Amino acid sequence: MSDHALDTPFGFTTLGRCPDTRARRGRLQTGHGAVETPVFMPVGTVGSVKAVTFEQVWATGSRLILGNTYHLYLRPGHQLIERAGGLHRFQGWDGALLTDSAGFQVFSLNELNRITEDGVEFRSHLDGSRHFFSPELSMEIQLALGSDIVMAFDQCAPYGADRREVERAVERTTRWLGRCRDVFGGRTARGGWERVLFGIMQGGVHEDLRRRSAAEIVALDLPGYAIGGLSVDEPTPAMREMTELAADLLPADKPRYLMGVGFPDDILASVAAGVDMFDCVLPTRMARTGTVLTRDGRLVVKNQEYAEDALPLDPDCRCPVCARHSRAYIRHLFQAREILASTLATLHNLHFYQDLMAGIRLALDEGRFADHARQVGARWTEGEERRLADVRRRGL
Amino acid sequence: MSDHALDTPFGFTTLGRCPDTRARRGRLQTGHGAVETPVFMPVGTVGSVKAVTFEQVWATGSRLILGNTYHLYLRPGHQLIERAGGLHRFQGWDGALLTDSAGFQVFSLNELNRITEDGVEFRSHLDGSRHFFSPELSMEIQLALGSDIVMAFDQCAPYGADRREVERAVERTTRWLGRCRDVFGGRTARGGWERVLFGIMQGGVHEDLRRRSAAEIVALDLPGYAIGGLSVDEPTPAMREMTELAADLLPADKPRYLMGVGFPDDILASVAAGVDMFDCVLPTRMARTGTVLTRDGRLVVKNQEYAEDALPLDPDCRCPVCARHSRAYIRHLFQAREILASTLATLHNLHFYQDLMAGIRLALDEGRFADHARQVGARWTEGEERRLADVRRRGL
Repeated sequence: MSDHALDTPFGFTTLGRCPDTRARRGRLQTGHGAVETPVFMPVGTVGSVKAVTFEQVWATGSRLILGNTYHLYLRPGHQLIERAGGLHRFQGWDGALLTDSAGFQVFSLNELNRITEDGVEFRSHLDGSRHFFSPELSMEIQLALGSDIVMAFDQCAPYGADRREVERAVERTTRWLGRCRDVFGGRTARGGWERVLFGIMQGGVHEDLRRRSAAEIVALDLPGYAIGGLSVDEPTPAMREMTELAADLLPADKPRYLMGVGFPDDILASVAAGVDMFDCVLPTRMARTGTVLTRDGRLVVKNQEYAEDALPLDPDCRCPVCARHSRAYIRHLFQAREILASTLATLHNLHFYQDLMAGIRLALDEGRFADHARQVGARWTEGEERRLADVRRRGL
Repeated sequence: MSDHALDTPFGFTTLGRCPDTRARRGRLQTGHGAVETPVFMPVGTVGSVKAVTFEQVWATGSRLILGNTYHLYLRPGHQLIERAGGLHRFQGWDGALLTDSAGFQVFSLNELNRITEDGVEFRSHLDGSRHFFSPELSMEIQLALGSDIVMAFDQCAPYGADRREVERAVERTTRWLGRCRDVFGGRTARGGWERVLFGIMQGGVHEDLRRRSAAEIVALDLPGYAIGGLSVDEPTPAMREMTELAADLLPADKPRYLMGVGFPDDILASVAAGVDMFDCVLPTRMARTGTVLTRDGRLVVKNQEYAEDALPLDPDCRCPVCARHSRAYIRHLFQAREILASTLATLHNLHFYQDLMAGIRLALDEGRFADHARQVGARWTEGEERRLADVRRRGL
């Protein structure tokens, strides 16, 4: 991994704008190196991007990854990680690190949670033990982890919640953001590098609530903002529409982060709407169940039809897995339940996402993003439609 | 991975001899590159060295690995691998490859086997289906796999078998070796490289049977010979004594391969007895259960006592895992059941074995092997004794 300056202040620079869409090309400067945007962050849930080494993650081109506060709090515990010198050092990742706030997990992984103005009481998904998360505890944990980007503790109303519930979540998210900012303290992490706090917008699929949430969080003039409460089972058109609206409501000079999105076509559309940062478990989680991503849509490589297929996972991919291995071999590894199956599929999928983002950035640099997004999006969508037609035809 | 000459004939050259022991420093020339001996072969059972990529295996310094005929015959099948261009190409390994004969597995993994002069009937450990292995089928499979070194189909009597049973296994192994040689054919594999057949000595812990087996197989003047039937639960002194005897009975100008051995102290003693080649599942299998090897003996890194241990797995190790990660981190990965736990522990253990062999070769080159073996062996043994005393003290 490369060197990085620990003494560089956090910053976001817009390097260029698409002449046809709201897409922008930018650079995030962090205490652990520069990150070119639009950027996709692989998810390293509990101290590991599942099934791959951090050297391998770095080699895919990833320079910013996400760690999960909820999971690391439960195991091995943020205090242990703090004593070990913080999460970068504990897990051996030299790049930049964003931690989520645990807000999403305490609502989504815990059906028996109890929400009050103070915070959320929930039971651990590991052993059922009782825990209480507040904005203050979320900050305490994330500051102990020592991430470069700290996310505010928000309340995400589930899709389908009634308008009044979404409104209450917006109001609480604003109040909790104030509490997060109050305990966040100075911008210098214990390790010496700059850390920053990002606010999160809520509002579900309600335009007026999105506007209200945006106005309230933007008033705090934070170094970056996230769009929360999307990719929670709402229909794709609603997600796309809300992303366009939400991105436009956030300041142009701050990075915009769309949480938990998504498939390549969603990413292309969201970049066009002005989003700069993405994270999703999709490439890593799908890999472990035997599904890989190609320029022509998903490929379920563990299927029988690939038993003797000598092609690489994606013939247009230049990743080390596609350079060396066939679909037949990787399908065999899944059949034989070899650990290497998950590793190779994950490596390919992470390369696929980083190549997708590198292609987007290059197209932005060369002023041809709109065409590029149309072509890449159409090829993906046609591939997905062929796959779905094939699945239906075979009655699978 | 580096280039290699496919047109080099197979050969074994002795580069030097230890002035104090029977150890020798040599080089195996194969159709997939040169292999410095004494050499340790990682085991790639079913098309994968478990939990690591072949790039990672190569980076440990491994240039010759072992594939299991029995497992590959059952899944994905040798014919599929042959259609894919052979095992090197199917699994993406550019180095040299030795395949075992399946003899050991059909006897050890199958309690319900039935042995006749023709071969062995057994049930698959995967689905209970019936199969019949003969010397001819073992050759057919290994030739289809396209390995550089093909092992003869032998009969390994279990430890504790009575003398008459061991004698019958020796006799049958000799007859089966003749049949293997008869169907082995020319030395050119379908891929164009040279392949060679190694014979296997049996005889259990009986000196006269070892002498008889050696005389009978050496008479065939094969390019290399293995010592089989050891490391099958016999006491260590018997194993060491038989290894010394057996190595001495094999021709000095042919490589000697001690199958399935073993721990570092066993390897040091066997090199001193004149053994050139080793394989063992120990580094890869132990890794996946949370045990790593250090210069001071085994370390059960998944134990609670390492929860906050900031040291690397082995402070004297220069492998990439020890350069980047602490015991505390790897212990956490085992606790959280992360795939990366197995990968990092396997990588370290494979590096440990390759470093052990590199140290042996360097000491041989510099004429100080006897001292080196004493020091390395004493440090390992003292570490193991401390560990065992500690386990007893704590009543574990």
